[in-house]
Amino acid sequence: MKCRKCGERAVINMRQHKLALCKEHYLEWLPDQVERAIEKYQMFGREERILVAVSGGKDSLSLWDILHRLGYQAEGLYIGLGIDGGLDYSENSHRMCEKFAATHGLTLRVEDIAQRYGASIPEAASISNRGRGRPCSVCGMVKRHVMNRVARDGGFDVLVTGHNLDDEVAVLMQNTLHWAGGYLVRQAPVLPASHPGLARKAKPFCRTYERETAAYALLRGIDYIYDECVYALGSTTLYYKDILNQMEAKRPGAKLQFYLSFLEAKEGGLFALQPEPGALNVCGTCGQPTSAPGKCSFCRLWDKVHAVKEAALPASPAPS
Amino acid sequence: MKCRKCGERAVINMRQHKLALCKEHYLEWLPDQVERAIEKYQMFGREERILVAVSGGKDSLSLWDILHRLGYQAEGLYIGLGIDGGLDYSENSHRMCEKFAATHGLTLRVEDIAQRYGASIPEAASISNRGRGRPCSVCGMVKRHVMNRVARDGGFDVLVTGHNLDDEVAVLMQNTLHWAGGYLVRQAPVLPASHPGLARKAKPFCRTYERETAAYALLRGIDYIYDECVYALGSTTLYYKDILNQMEAKRPGAKLQFYLSFLEAKEGGLFALQPEPGALNVCGTCGQPTSAPGKCSFCRLWDKVHAVKEAALPASPAPS
Repeated sequence: MKCRKCGERAVINMRQHKLALCKEHYLEWLPDQVERAIEKYQMFGREERILVAVSGGKDSLSLWDILHRLGYQAEGLYIGLGIDGGLDYSENSHRMCEKFAATHGLTLRVEDIAQRYGASIPEAASISNRGRGRPCSVCGMVKRHVMNRVARDGGFDVLVTGHNLDDEVAVLMQNTLHWAGGYLVRQAPVLPASHPGLARKAKPFCRTYERETAAYALLRGIDYIYDECVYALGSTTLYYKDILNQMEAKRPGAKLQFYLSFLEAKEGGLFALQPEPGALNVCGTCGQPTSAPGKCSFCRLWDKVHAVKEAALPASPAPS
Repeated sequence: MKCRKCGERAVINMRQHKLALCKEHYLEWLPDQVERAIEKYQMFGREERILVAVSGGKDSLSLWDILHRLGYQAEGLYIGLGIDGGLDYSENSHRMCEKFAATHGLTLRVEDIAQRYGASIPEAASISNRGRGRPCSVCGMVKRHVMNRVARDGGFDVLVTGHNLDDEVAVLMQNTLHWAGGYLVRQAPVLPASHPGLARKAKPFCRTYERETAAYALLRGIDYIYDECVYALGSTTLYYKDILNQMEAKRPGAKLQFYLSFLEAKEGGLFALQPEPGALNVCGTCGQPTSAPGKCSFCRLWDKVHAVKEAALPASPAPS
């Protein structure tokens, strides 16, 4: 297999694009694709300050690398979740982010959940009783809050995440199979800052296959954490990814086609339902927007965690 | 496994409904389910004349049987397509329909395509050059035309087909993965007669799994043709059915949930796009509605078939 551009030995063959490329041209091609997505969906400009949420994985570190190479002003944000899972998951992922930032002379902001709020994600989740034994819903909610706070307090124009095409189509498939209209109309490559306290959000990898971000990280020599979070195993998202991988294997390009035709249909006015614009309340405690009046779910979570921890009963009942 | 209703030995366990039934109660339960679908979607009433399109397969014959048992006035329509496929497919399916009608004292109308129009479906399809080597698109178009004509000329109120849930979700999945808005908004358990020359169409099995219609046919002793049409092998529909079967195996009820949540979302106003109501033209030759002005595609098909057959060149070139 030869590189389409120079005829040298190709290192990657992308059946979905009918395109094989050598290392050099692949490392040019992907940033070019990302630049096109940024422009097409009007995500942000070079004069804007960008906060990239980095997890230490291939997607977010490759994205930070590409944004930097493309000349965007991107700082990193690492959120320490306190997940061990027998792999020192959080510690290793933190190290990868620090290493990347140091190597490229970039600024990394670090937020440690346990340090700031008094409990790790797994501990907070187990106290909260949300998510049927999995901390994923608590984790998502906390990350969204913290990312938003850091973006707002740091004066960033936009918050960027490394969600790739595989992530996006898995969510799309799930929402489609349930015909979850409210979620469908909100899924987009860029979400405007619909409220003063909410950051604009963008996903420059939304058209990029997971395999393409992995290849990029490897070829660029980016050190990243290979392990998935232990809590992701057996998750609903992985179930939909499995289905979509089978479809992609049979029909290369199926995922991209599914995603792009969705965006096109939405743009073309398929849906009557519109994303809820605002009418949001503001949490009296943290000042972030919240759907219901009163304290937001983030603040209620920590209230409960602190109350439980402070009132902690002795491990064994007192002798009667 | 015991019958939920009487405790006798169950003959079928429907994980999607968390319901196991004995033969007697299953043969009561399915007609009851069909009756509910007919009422819920306002398909037709007992005073109306119903034309059931029967293919000789388990779905359409079971449906005819159930409609008859429920006291509806249902005549059958068999369309002879002239498909052999090494199995005498059309001949055998015709025999099954005749046998069923005779056993139950019901009226079967028969339309033979080759006899009436001068070529079988495979021959017409090969002359027409439509459908990339498969006669399926020509076959569908011809069947729709003939069903509609017989329903109209026979003074029927409604045309009913045996499409089951598996058929419906395969189409839904295909249209969803392509976000084919026009098709999505038109997919429904019942389509009103949007034009004087078009029959109302209904699918009373739209919530019934294929496995349930097969079990019904077997338990009722209905003789039906087991073979799929040879041209269905490797079809796009079977590809989507495969995917959906895997999902159903992992999550019993997934197909029904997908279909019902789609209907609910549509009913709830998810889509802005509306099914095109009318603005249809009428074919000057056959009098049926057609989307474009002039002759309809059905009449153009047969014009071409007749022209090619009449001008047929000698099989071998004349000696020079």
